[in-house]
Amino acid sequence: MTASPVVSPSLLLTAVLLSLVVIYLTSKAGGEICHRLDLPPVLGELIGGVMVGVSLLHLLVLPGGSATSSWLLAFMQFTGGLGSVSPPALFQAQGSFIDVLAELGVVILLFEVGLQSDLQELLRVGPLASLVAVVGVVVPFALGTLGLMGIFGVATVPAVFAGAALTATSIGITAKVLSQVGHLNTQEGQIILGAAVLDDVLGIMVLAVVAGLARTGQVDLYQVVHLLISAVVFLGGAIFVGRWFSPYLVALINRLRTRGQLLLSAFVFAFSLAYIAQVIQLEAILGAFAAGLVLAETEKRQELEHQVLPVADMLVPVFFVTVGAQTDLGVLTQPGLGLGVAFFLVAVAIGGKLVTALVVPARLNRLAVGVGMMPRGEVGLVFLSIGSATHILPPNLQAAIVLVVIATTLAAPPLLRGVFARALPH
Amino acid sequence: MTASPVVSPSLLLTAVLLSLVVIYLTSKAGGEICHRLDLPPVLGELIGGVMVGVSLLHLLVLPGGSATSSWLLAFMQFTGGLGSVSPPALFQAQGSFIDVLAELGVVILLFEVGLQSDLQELLRVGPLASLVAVVGVVVPFALGTLGLMGIFGVATVPAVFAGAALTATSIGITAKVLSQVGHLNTQEGQIILGAAVLDDVLGIMVLAVVAGLARTGQVDLYQVVHLLISAVVFLGGAIFVGRWFSPYLVALINRLRTRGQLLLSAFVFAFSLAYIAQVIQLEAILGAFAAGLVLAETEKRQELEHQVLPVADMLVPVFFVTVGAQTDLGVLTQPGLGLGVAFFLVAVAIGGKLVTALVVPARLNRLAVGVGMMPRGEVGLVFLSIGSATHILPPNLQAAIVLVVIATTLAAPPLLRGVFARALPH
Repeated sequence: MTASPVVSPSLLLTAVLLSLVVIYLTSKAGGEICHRLDLPPVLGELIGGVMVGVSLLHLLVLPGGSATSSWLLAFMQFTGGLGSVSPPALFQAQGSFIDVLAELGVVILLFEVGLQSDLQELLRVGPLASLVAVVGVVVPFALGTLGLMGIFGVATVPAVFAGAALTATSIGITAKVLSQVGHLNTQEGQIILGAAVLDDVLGIMVLAVVAGLARTGQVDLYQVVHLLISAVVFLGGAIFVGRWFSPYLVALINRLRTRGQLLLSAFVFAFSLAYIAQVIQLEAILGAFAAGLVLAETEKRQELEHQVLPVADMLVPVFFVTVGAQTDLGVLTQPGLGLGVAFFLVAVAIGGKLVTALVVPARLNRLAVGVGMMPRGEVGLVFLSIGSATHILPPNLQAAIVLVVIATTLAAPPLLRGVFARALPH
Repeated sequence: MTASPVVSPSLLLTAVLLSLVVIYLTSKAGGEICHRLDLPPVLGELIGGVMVGVSLLHLLVLPGGSATSSWLLAFMQFTGGLGSVSPPALFQAQGSFIDVLAELGVVILLFEVGLQSDLQELLRVGPLASLVAVVGVVVPFALGTLGLMGIFGVATVPAVFAGAALTATSIGITAKVLSQVGHLNTQEGQIILGAAVLDDVLGIMVLAVVAGLARTGQVDLYQVVHLLISAVVFLGGAIFVGRWFSPYLVALINRLRTRGQLLLSAFVFAFSLAYIAQVIQLEAILGAFAAGLVLAETEKRQELEHQVLPVADMLVPVFFVTVGAQTDLGVLTQPGLGLGVAFFLVAVAIGGKLVTALVVPARLNRLAVGVGMMPRGEVGLVFLSIGSATHILPPNLQAAIVLVVIATTLAAPPLLRGVFARALPH
């Protein structure tokens, strides 16, 4: 029952509790500051993570880099002592636990995203929104990948991965900004939202395919086609079988009488789909997302959303903060592949979505659509976390993706206010 | 960012998701069956855990014993393959994660118990209920410890630990049974409940002291007194300082505007107290319990209880099921220290609480009070889990404690119906 030959579960629990205190304080401090500055709280959690992490304070450091300790462990050693346990052993065990807890947070996050998406609406997304979504996925993906390979000499697999991380617009951030500027229900707003919903799905599928490629380290056409078909068949199949199966699941849940019957049944469904997705070389999050989509169509949706909320509140910040904490912004100062790559990816991320304006008819506010598609968020960070966990993304690309998320999310709200104000003066 | 030099986070996540599916299915199956048999669901989760665990099906096996694999891992290997990872390495990493997740579940459980306790009511508990509580803690503790040492030749520390595991009546189970037989508001019912609330506090404090002793492996008077004073001062101090501090915390929470502000603030408070308790050689759960008690007195109690519920629903079953799964009932068949010890502890657990009837005035239904104090549950299992994690409790005592929980919980409801029916025929 020992966590490892050296670290006892009791000591590991102590380290985990202290880590969670730091993570939650960071997440709330960052989130609240951003909220007051009218910025999305997730940005604050990410920046807060960067500040307490390996880039700056070294308070929360996870294994993977060259570090073998953190101020958090030093504090623990100072206050309580570690007994006979070597700090590196505890550092490793605690980091590994927090790491997997963060990944569990991503699974819950994507389940929640699926639960909040409306499959009917997704199927109703108009041809224009679909076109915007596809252009907005393909252009930054292609430009990012080819540029990294051609200009910066990055190897194929990390280049594809980093390019793919630029694809998905953040629905949450976009919807919030649109509603703040009062344009959620304009035609432009509806196109942006529809496209953002669709490109989340596209982005998650691209992730599943790209991560599958990364497992073998090779990119050949056969495998791309195979994984792409797997992803489409899995998502389609999960939704199809899920829609047939969900009434039975709901009937079963209605007959259960003990605490947590809805939440745990939903988790069994979601985690099973996540497991299947993982087993067929896709990603666990694709399964969790599919489960959310399916359960969103049942009568239990509201109750379930309500119950998943506190669980997500508890686990998702672990993900956002640790993603930031693991990012070493110091690598950006390296000559050559540092800031240059970061500026390039930020430019592609912004430009690649602005291009979508070109497919919008001139009678609409075309620029508003392009700007509205800009903010990247959760899905981009999921790419980052999977890319770094599988050692595909080198530190400079990790740091660059964090900068992309920060820059696009910071820039979109004022820009969107600007383009809407110019077109329709209040 | 690797979980260990060999197991990748992604593979570990896959194993964890599959383990959670098995745990939740087991918990719900056991809980629902028991509910339909009019037994407490926690009993079903425990027995379900025993069935899928090392005693029987070997589906969910955690490291610690002699086993190095499980059917769950075999299934994973069969369906997905483990790549180049050796099954024992993954077995260790997955077991360690689930183990700490279960301990996190215990922390949340005790926080919830604290939150549901009423400090005012605890202070109001009458002298009679207090006497019942103290007698019901001291008698089984003393009889159990001395009997294990004298009759069975068990060493001091494990004997003290096993004796202490017999102390706490399960409030949840007792309250449920009392309300089912319609005697919750009789004088007997109120005495039982008051005593059960009090002996939970006593039990958790005994645990903190006994676990402290176990860390050094020695039992000397100085240390007992030192830990006892620590526990009293910590609990008293946490409540005193907490009551002064909590209005400021509530005011802060009321000014926060981002998602999860209440839950995460409460967790920061609870985990900080848990950390302090652990650092001063007590137990994390004592801190979590104290935090729950303090927050229960604020205006946020209801909202917080509501939000903690899904988190507890998710994490607490991990604890109950793994406690069962780790228990090897096979050791009971060993000659000498097997069934003999188990029968002895069950007898002491029942007899030690029945004795409390003697301090109740004859005008009341004395036997009902004794029987009502019988069911052991959560706190006894917490003893078990801490005792086995720290390698204090040998397998035969672990199995015996599981039998105590099962036997007392099974016997109490029909007996209580019996004694109440005899006294007050409907």
